[in-house]
Amino acid sequence: MAERAYKHILFSVEGGVATITLNRPERLNAFHFGLGAELEQAYARCDEEDEIRAVILTGAGKAFCVGADMGGGEKTFDDVDGARRAAEPKSGGRRLAAWQVRKPVVAAIHGHAVGVGLTLALQCDLRFVAREAKLAFSFVRRGIIPELGSHSILPRVVGFSRAADLLLSGRTFKGEEAAALGLASEVMASEEVVPRARDWARDIAKNAAPASVAIAKRLLWEGVIETPRETMVKEKQLLAWAGKQPDAAEGVRSFLERRPPEWKLSASADLPDWPED
Amino acid sequence: MAERAYKHILFSVEGGVATITLNRPERLNAFHFGLGAELEQAYARCDEEDEIRAVILTGAGKAFCVGADMGGGEKTFDDVDGARRAAEPKSGGRRLAAWQVRKPVVAAIHGHAVGVGLTLALQCDLRFVAREAKLAFSFVRRGIIPELGSHSILPRVVGFSRAADLLLSGRTFKGEEAAALGLASEVMASEEVVPRARDWARDIAKNAAPASVAIAKRLLWEGVIETPRETMVKEKQLLAWAGKQPDAAEGVRSFLERRPPEWKLSASADLPDWPED
Amino acid sequence: MAERAYKHILFSVEGGVATITLNRPERLNAFHFGLGAELEQAYARCDEEDEIRAVILTGAGKAFCVGADMGGGEKTFDDVDGARRAAEPKSGGRRLAAWQVRKPVVAAIHGHAVGVGLTLALQCDLRFVAREAKLAFSFVRRGIIPELGSHSILPRVVGFSRAADLLLSGRTFKGEEAAALGLASEVMASEEVVPRARDWARDIAKNAAPASVAIAKRLLWEGVIETPRETMVKEKQLLAWAGKQPDAAEGVRSFLERRPPEWKLSASADLPDWPED
Repeated sequence: MAERAYKHILFSVEGGVATITLNRPERLNAFHFGLGAELEQAYARCDEEDEIRAVILTGAGKAFCVGADMGGGEKTFDDVDGARRAAEPKSGGRRLAAWQVRKPVVAAIHGHAVGVGLTLALQCDLRFVAREAKLAFSFVRRGIIPELGSHSILPRVVGFSRAADLLLSGRTFKGEEAAALGLASEVMASEEVVPRARDWARDIAKNAAPASVAIAKRLLWEGVIETPRETMVKEKQLLAWAGKQPDAAEGVRSFLERRPPEWKLSASADLPDWPED
Repeated sequence: MAERAYKHILFSVEGGVATITLNRPERLNAFHFGLGAELEQAYARCDEEDEIRAVILTGAGKAFCVGADMGGGEKTFDDVDGARRAAEPKSGGRRLAAWQVRKPVVAAIHGHAVGVGLTLALQCDLRFVAREAKLAFSFVRRGIIPELGSHSILPRVVGFSRAADLLLSGRTFKGEEAAALGLASEVMASEEVVPRARDWARDIAKNAAPASVAIAKRLLWEGVIETPRETMVKEKQLLAWAGKQPDAAEGVRSFLERRPPEWKLSASADLPDWPED
Repeated sequence: MAERAYKHILFSVEGGVATITLNRPERLNAFHFGLGAELEQAYARCDEEDEIRAVILTGAGKAFCVGADMGGGEKTFDDVDGARRAAEPKSGGRRLAAWQVRKPVVAAIHGHAVGVGLTLALQCDLRFVAREAKLAFSFVRRGIIPELGSHSILPRVVGFSRAADLLLSGRTFKGEEAAALGLASEVMASEEVVPRARDWARDIAKNAAPASVAIAKRLLWEGVIETPRETMVKEKQLLAWAGKQPDAAEGVRSFLERRPPEWKLSASADLPDWPED
């Protein structure tokens, strides 16, 4: 694959798994909108390339991402919209958030994750975390507010009251508690976090049908405001469609023959029309 | 009670508790739409008969339900809608899902539960599970997609990210993890699962007012897309109604007299008009 | 601060933290609408007074609140609406529920909490609980139904199936289980519950910007029926506003200078226009 030029992130693909690495280790991967724009471009690329079946987000060096770069001192947040616009890539092009990518995205939080460093990880489908990582939704302690959808994502991940505790206090907690709360799927030593995320991603890359995963992910993120009955209407149409595709035949065949599946459908090209709400 | 004829399930009632048993043990209770239609008829019967105050769903033999019957090989899923229609009972009659029954429905997962075997259990209000049970939302590994509302039910039961892990990977997990995730209320030895579910159901049959339970269950399932304020509007009307009924007087009286309650209201005949949304 | 006259509660403020104490210890703080009206008035006061930065709800004596006062015997619930109206304070004045207060509200459940005693605590943002406290959503065992939004709040706090278990059975459980289920943030000895809640509240009073906390709390409670995308639209506007305020500059400055922040904005007077839905 031709490497594109990124300034603030690293991008690699191996065994069907893309790894996006926040790459400002000298600033503990502190966030600015230039970094944010590249990350969104990288997510769009993950969405488009069929070779990529799952995505890992991590950081270079010791930290995952310590939050907004405060190099601007007290002016750090004084023109958020302007700063975002100024960082818009001139090249244009598609940009996505993690939850819009048609592949699972897992955050490998191998080190500290604070503020936007943590809400970026919260937009991923799930997270693995290092035992010693320091974590904080620190926004209210900086006189600003949480963003990236965290007010409605976090309660759905950890429960409403645990989310209220973390967002309203902005307190610091560690990996062990993150796992106990359900914010991370598992906690482990720092050096094991990326390998664990890779195992999780490779299992999907190897065994799960790309079109099925893409549909299920979209249904999950849309389902947060649906009744089971509403969701079932969509599932019924999509299941009827999926059952007629070659991958449904291959899924059963490979299972009965106890061999790895060979999927035909592409998540970028072969998805069905989406059911009307 | 006159026994009706079921081909694929067993149905019994004792002490106010109905037990529905998936009964294809020679196929590990593999699902087909004939079984599904009988199950929905049995749920409708549970909904209608006042003698029944709570419902248990379990399976005959060692497995709970290993998922779709793949006897059709690679054609298993190629005409889901047609297969569903072909299995429509000629007798007609009411059919319900577990969450529509005006009584609590608990799944006693004493053995393996895979695919639709697990999503059927997910439509129940709660679950008890065997330690050694193998569980998987295996859909994406068969080239199809999860159904029965699981995309919006599972995240509400175990949290969004745990649901994403299980649905997007389709991985196999065991009873212990199911309990840790909140998918099951408790984990225990296989032979204790049905007795535990029966204890839970009998406590309700003995102590909880049928009309109150029916109203609370409906409010719970409707509440998933409501704000607390919206829910309160409905609760206020329904509480004002309930407080005027003989069961509210009996509830206090039996409590103060430290004796078992004797409820008057029927969940099939005595529920109030439902508040407008 | 001039003390106002309450009959059924105590009210005090210290170190930025208001403590509301249900004060009918001779009746184990049993609830009637006179108590309820005073509680709502006290919440409104907490909402209005800038000196108050966080709120604790607890009870005098050994119990937190054992539920509705059943002194009326079997007539306890026969005219709920009439009883509520009869208790309306003649003085008029603003009245709020805990979740409407622009400050975090934490319940310190140092003793038994039953029925409305528990749903009042559920309207708080989070809870600490005593190990030996007996807890029950006992409504269905009294022939009535749960209220105060519990049908849509409890599932979001503990997960749908755990909520169904507790609301449909009305069973009694203890503090340890409440913490395991996520109903309480932590469990501890009874005498440590109020001090623990006070520590939590003081941390916010000392470190979190009042306007930021007020905005985050409202976004959290509104977010329960929003998609992440919908929430992000509101967050984006509110973050752009917050970033321009003096508290955002002070937040960064105090952090970089490693000193306690001195916030300027008031939660009662300085909040921005709320984004349209």
